[in-house]
Amino acid sequence: MIAPYNCVVVANGTFPQTALPLRLLREASVVIACDGAVQALHDAGITPTAIVGDLDSIQPRFRELYAGRIHIVEDQEINDLTKSVRFACQSGEKEVLILGATGLREDHTLGNISLLADYASLFDRVEMLSDYGIFTPIRQTTTLDSHPGQQVSLFSLSPCGRITTSGLRWPINDRQLTAWWQGTLNEATGDSFTITLSPGSPVLVYRTL
Amino acid sequence: MIAPYNCVVVANGTFPQTALPLRLLREASVVIACDGAVQALHDAGITPTAIVGDLDSIQPRFRELYAGRIHIVEDQEINDLTKSVRFACQSGEKEVLILGATGLREDHTLGNISLLADYASLFDRVEMLSDYGIFTPIRQTTTLDSHPGQQVSLFSLSPCGRITTSGLRWPINDRQLTAWWQGTLNEATGDSFTITLSPGSPVLVYRTL
Repeated sequence: MIAPYNCVVVANGTFPQTALPLRLLREASVVIACDGAVQALHDAGITPTAIVGDLDSIQPRFRELYAGRIHIVEDQEINDLTKSVRFACQSGEKEVLILGATGLREDHTLGNISLLADYASLFDRVEMLSDYGIFTPIRQTTTLDSHPGQQVSLFSLSPCGRITTSGLRWPINDRQLTAWWQGTLNEATGDSFTITLSPGSPVLVYRTL
Repeated sequence: MIAPYNCVVVANGTFPQTALPLRLLREASVVIACDGAVQALHDAGITPTAIVGDLDSIQPRFRELYAGRIHIVEDQEINDLTKSVRFACQSGEKEVLILGATGLREDHTLGNISLLADYASLFDRVEMLSDYGIFTPIRQTTTLDSHPGQQVSLFSLSPCGRITTSGLRWPINDRQLTAWWQGTLNEATGDSFTITLSPGSPVLVYRTL
């Protein structure tokens, strides 16, 4: 379902446990660790290409072991995920998969998910994958792959935007999704579905795996 | 920090693992299981007072064991958490603590967190607690307990609402929080902090434990 990514950014939430994200991680040429995520990568036997962040939460032994790969970014205004994603962009990456961005602290989960919409303009393709599902940011009318019965949720990041869907079991017709739960728990009826957006109203699409 | 609750609703996300939520669960007189959460409660040696939902995801043996405690609610428009919370309200509960509402599927996590704001009008006190932090919905200017250095995040559920804070390290001054991440990763400076809201603009306050 998900084409390989050249670059994977690993955030400091729950490290992936299941086959799909672990395969995509191992197949990536470039692996960027957000600060303390270096520990979980090391435990999984994966050497990060780069470690990015303020390095508050990295053990001294990793500072030594990966000395040439550390990129310290001090900026209180942005979180470690954004520092790593910007590093990927500045390194010329055009497609980035984000792992480990959810789970554990809920404020980090919510922040990271919403930031995905901001990252969409930086890359040709950027998605956020967990053991449970994948978030895809869309900024214009988009058709996505699915399988019949696949659970689909839509999260509007601009409550004034209007959304229309086709190929979902409970159609949405030119509607605003003002509460986060209003677009949740829909279901694909076939091999694809289409989300039609009003201009300038990004939406996050979540599909279960 | 958290006064005991008479009623705890256990949703079907990650079952609590840490001392505080488990203590509040064991001290509650009324424990309502959202559908499949009965399994985790049973494994923890806790008998639910009631099991509420469409009961899609409950094992036949629990249907028999807890036959007199099962309340089937068929309604495609609301999720199992809302069914259980409404059951608590109809049972006369005035204060409800929600556990197990986050973790696992991110669409459920986002939906459940946003629904907490809707539940605020049903009770004198309602909060959502995980192993990492607690969400408190506020509908008017409110002062909350804290400890110096405690991480605090604010999530605006009405992007038009304006927010002012005192007692936080990075003050917010009559500002709209249009993206979910904009109010995250703040920090209490003392034993309490105050959020001032414009009317009709609910906010979820997250404090780490």
